[in-house]
Amino acid sequence: MNQNEILHMTDHTLLKQDATWDQIREVLDDAMAYDCASACIPPVYVKQAAEYVDGKLPICTVIGFPNGNMTTAVKVFETKDALENGASEIDMVIHVGDAKAKNWDKIQNEIAAVKEVCGDHILKVIVETCLLEPDEIAKLCQVVSDAKADFIKTSTGFSTAGATFENVQIMADNRPEGLKIKAAGGISDFKDAEKFIELGADRLGCSRLVKIAKAK
Amino acid sequence: MNQNEILHMTDHTLLKQDATWDQIREVLDDAMAYDCASACIPPVYVKQAAEYVDGKLPICTVIGFPNGNMTTAVKVFETKDALENGASEIDMVIHVGDAKAKNWDKIQNEIAAVKEVCGDHILKVIVETCLLEPDEIAKLCQVVSDAKADFIKTSTGFSTAGATFENVQIMADNRPEGLKIKAAGGISDFKDAEKFIELGADRLGCSRLVKIAKAK
Repeated sequence: MNQNEILHMTDHTLLKQDATWDQIREVLDDAMAYDCASACIPPVYVKQAAEYVDGKLPICTVIGFPNGNMTTAVKVFETKDALENGASEIDMVIHVGDAKAKNWDKIQNEIAAVKEVCGDHILKVIVETCLLEPDEIAKLCQVVSDAKADFIKTSTGFSTAGATFENVQIMADNRPEGLKIKAAGGISDFKDAEKFIELGADRLGCSRLVKIAKAK
Repeated sequence: MNQNEILHMTDHTLLKQDATWDQIREVLDDAMAYDCASACIPPVYVKQAAEYVDGKLPICTVIGFPNGNMTTAVKVFETKDALENGASEIDMVIHVGDAKAKNWDKIQNEIAAVKEVCGDHILKVIVETCLLEPDEIAKLCQVVSDAKADFIKTSTGFSTAGATFENVQIMADNRPEGLKIKAAGGISDFKDAEKFIELGADRLGCSRLVKIAKAK
């Protein structure tokens, strides 16, 4: 694959807590210039970003991010708020404590409640693989699919590790038909990006690929 | 000060994203046994925790946590939700990007909106000192006080560093009359805890002090 094809599958991402509008605007400009799948930015900037790009780029934002231990009511409200502000795609975080306690029905119901608000908007579900065992990742592929979300996503980028080849392989081996995979967090270069795609990733989340492309 | 006096000023805290109810219940039991100021736990567990302690311990929870880059509407909704579920104290996170852009009025208005929902419930405002310059910390003491919050709090415990003696000293030197200080994140033992209190901290947030007391 060439770099442009990979960037077209990439959510160009800036989620750090001290990001300013000037930094977000640069991400939007770059994501448009490189025809990225979307720009993934914090909820607080969605309204301004949607106005700025004016339909030329999907705006992706994050819900219950990054710790996921908010109530379902808050995640649903936050999703509505983000969509009203102009978000096109939603990346929500599950409550990992529920996975540890095997509260699979609670996780599925929460995802389904958020998906109901999303309607036709793409919903990606971050399961934070670095905190999970392989059998928990496999189980969550089923749970996320049963809840009718569009993607299972590896990582927030704010926990102990990002995407790994091993964990994307587990997702590729266990996903029900139709469930897509987003690999995110710590993807360092185009060689790694291509490997994630070969393993089965349909979307990437990263900040560095555009920087590498710009540096050429 | 003796250990009991210090524990009485401590919000005994467990906020990690994979915490289960069994772990939260142990924190509640310990916080009651050691007569802590509160137990500080994730929003998703507030309702169950409030029912469990049945008025014998204040439940503190966190809003917009830990990255703070949600919209004001979401922080206000999350606060209402937490209070309805039985929270007594609210620790909210500012959007640090607004501090970097010197959007002081926006920060003040957001805190004031959350405080309006809180009413007489204690509101602590986390400014994430590890991402701030000394002059930004000093300015935020004024902003937090003007917004009528009860405490300024150093850290989430999820960024690059926790409370430092230097940053609590800056708060002590710059706080308007009536504004209290909570030092949180990385407080490792009773010696450090006492030093933070000597510098001006009115409340501590930590998980380790109770563990040390229990190990005796």
